[in-house]
Amino acid sequence: MEEHLVLLLKEEVERRIQRLKALMDEKRLDGSFFHYKVDYYYLSGTMQDALLFVPLYEEPILFVKREISRAKIESPLRNIVGVDSYSEVKKYLPPLKRVGVEIDIVPFQEVIRLKELLGNPEIYDSSLLIKQLRKKKSTFEINLLEKAAEIQKKVYSYIPHVLTEGISEIELGGILEAYAKKLGHEGILRMRSLNYEPYSWHILSGESGSVVSQAESPMGGYGLSPAFPVGASFRKIKRNEPIVIDFGICYYGYHVDQTRIFAIGNIPKKFLDAHKVCIEIQNAILEQIPNGTRSKDLFDIGRKIAEKYGYRDCYLGYDPYKVRFVGHGVGLELSELPYIAQRHEYPIEEGSVFAIEPKMVFKGEGSCGIENTVVFSSGKVRIITDNDQGICIV
Amino acid sequence: MEEHLVLLLKEEVERRIQRLKALMDEKRLDGSFFHYKVDYYYLSGTMQDALLFVPLYEEPILFVKREISRAKIESPLRNIVGVDSYSEVKKYLPPLKRVGVEIDIVPFQEVIRLKELLGNPEIYDSSLLIKQLRKKKSTFEINLLEKAAEIQKKVYSYIPHVLTEGISEIELGGILEAYAKKLGHEGILRMRSLNYEPYSWHILSGESGSVVSQAESPMGGYGLSPAFPVGASFRKIKRNEPIVIDFGICYYGYHVDQTRIFAIGNIPKKFLDAHKVCIEIQNAILEQIPNGTRSKDLFDIGRKIAEKYGYRDCYLGYDPYKVRFVGHGVGLELSELPYIAQRHEYPIEEGSVFAIEPKMVFKGEGSCGIENTVVFSSGKVRIITDNDQGICIV
Repeated sequence: MEEHLVLLLKEEVERRIQRLKALMDEKRLDGSFFHYKVDYYYLSGTMQDALLFVPLYEEPILFVKREISRAKIESPLRNIVGVDSYSEVKKYLPPLKRVGVEIDIVPFQEVIRLKELLGNPEIYDSSLLIKQLRKKKSTFEINLLEKAAEIQKKVYSYIPHVLTEGISEIELGGILEAYAKKLGHEGILRMRSLNYEPYSWHILSGESGSVVSQAESPMGGYGLSPAFPVGASFRKIKRNEPIVIDFGICYYGYHVDQTRIFAIGNIPKKFLDAHKVCIEIQNAILEQIPNGTRSKDLFDIGRKIAEKYGYRDCYLGYDPYKVRFVGHGVGLELSELPYIAQRHEYPIEEGSVFAIEPKMVFKGEGSCGIENTVVFSSGKVRIITDNDQGICIV
Repeated sequence: MEEHLVLLLKEEVERRIQRLKALMDEKRLDGSFFHYKVDYYYLSGTMQDALLFVPLYEEPILFVKREISRAKIESPLRNIVGVDSYSEVKKYLPPLKRVGVEIDIVPFQEVIRLKELLGNPEIYDSSLLIKQLRKKKSTFEINLLEKAAEIQKKVYSYIPHVLTEGISEIELGGILEAYAKKLGHEGILRMRSLNYEPYSWHILSGESGSVVSQAESPMGGYGLSPAFPVGASFRKIKRNEPIVIDFGICYYGYHVDQTRIFAIGNIPKKFLDAHKVCIEIQNAILEQIPNGTRSKDLFDIGRKIAEKYGYRDCYLGYDPYKVRFVGHGVGLELSELPYIAQRHEYPIEEGSVFAIEPKMVFKGEGSCGIENTVVFSSGKVRIITDNDQGICIV
């Protein structure tokens, strides 16, 4: 890593640990474990094979199985201890009566083993703390998100050069991913889930754009087989149909999300009209965010505009597969707090970075809509994925 | 899916469920749940968002959240029930006193919820059953693995056309992945792990090939950042150095694994010599498999040949990062039973498909070695990744 980043990371990690300890104190925890690498990366700066323990009063201890010399370069933490097995950690720990563990994601067996090792302390779900911490992005993080957005902008600018009639969705997806990787895209997107695997090559043309799948998304696509039933397929892209390109980028672990609609030759007027409504919805919601409007009310703004223009049946998908969110936080995971969603009560707070994605799905025909990644800071919302928002005809 | 595959899958799924029920009976289970999509795909044919329950005597029930119409097309199971939430499943279940759950991989919180929902039955780790079942491949599965190997052979044949001096590891990785996807590679590789993410673009040139990382592998590579510290990096590939290309392919969910060594111009003699020893080790181990030799003794055959030629320090990595396996099963996951490993006692059984990968790592200089995917059936071992095994000089 570059030297100035290492220095910044030291202060950054110290602040994160301090904020975590304040939350741990509120919850009366003696300490908290972080097994999930996305979370211990946030708190330590490294993703080497490790287990992080943060005691309430002392310094954090990072137990590293492999590779400790890299962990020591990457992480500014002072207590980095090599272990062959995580069963060795007990001797480094204070007595623990009430302890945080990420029980939303760590396997049952692993939590049971840890409980036994520690003499059966009370367990609190430490994912609740880390999700709250990660919701508010620092300047350091916003800089990384902006670098991810720069890569994404280049990818979207590249699309008109490689989108041709007859190319398959998956072939186009592969070309775009190769281009993005060359620019620094890490390839794998991340989500806090046993079964949901996000991926970059979400390219859906014509009626593919109205195919629903396992993913909690208005449109899933055919995918390549029943073992990967989402995203780009072997379908060959035709003239005069909408082509949805929803391409996530990951840089230094930070995700940005963007969707643009393309077409070769022309696009039926119904998609053009619906697309304009999606942009109107996006702008109306963004305008309200600095006023402290609650998430559910922001969601309602979008729904009402869609209904006003007669898009009740296709806004955010068709029944029974409509989704109930129009925005999701982005950061070290592709989907995290805050959400702009039907059942969420909170307002969007300063420091939030989120994707907003009003979309319309016409069953059997295809989809259109927009998605941008937005930073909310200093009282203003700012789109960082700022390619032209109109449908791009090539 | 093609129609003949659907018919084959019906018989295949029936056989798998019968084999599972026999194991459940041995373990005195009233039923077993499968939350992990790789496992319910094996038992049902679909990866839509679902939860599978297999009772000991009745037919399996697949509970589907999304998308049920696709699940019904993909799966030959007869009981497919749509649910909004998995808390609804109780009303479809018989009373359960002892039940299987994949506690090695399902999050703690999820298992606790399920236990409460079911009135606190005794829990048995059903991953032990499914891992045993999946170890033995059917003809249907071997056909899919061979199709994956065909894609991989094409990718390896393509490498000499795109490997040029000065290209970065990640750029080459992107090009190969794009090519593989166009041929049907699903892009995402799978492993039963909270933190370990396998990926296709494991391309390590020169000293990159001796860099260790989080992965349980003799060589990890630099990767792109501390948030993805493995695999291809921005390092530009030079003349006269070893280039390790270890590129996994996934087709219809089935993985094959292969490694070949390339060089531009020439390669130092030490790598050529070590490479020949790796091939000798591979062949010596493969020759012993049909004799029923135990896994640990197969592992020892390799170690002894390496030592005989003076490669004790670099065989399977250098200390303290040596790995203690030289082979791993492949199938719906990139690493599964059986292993050829220092501490595994069992012999390799008929129906096994595995990758064998003797490799040498010279600290600070680079790596060489071989990896092939091998089918053991009808008393014979057969390499299905049969590109030329020598170092390819371009």
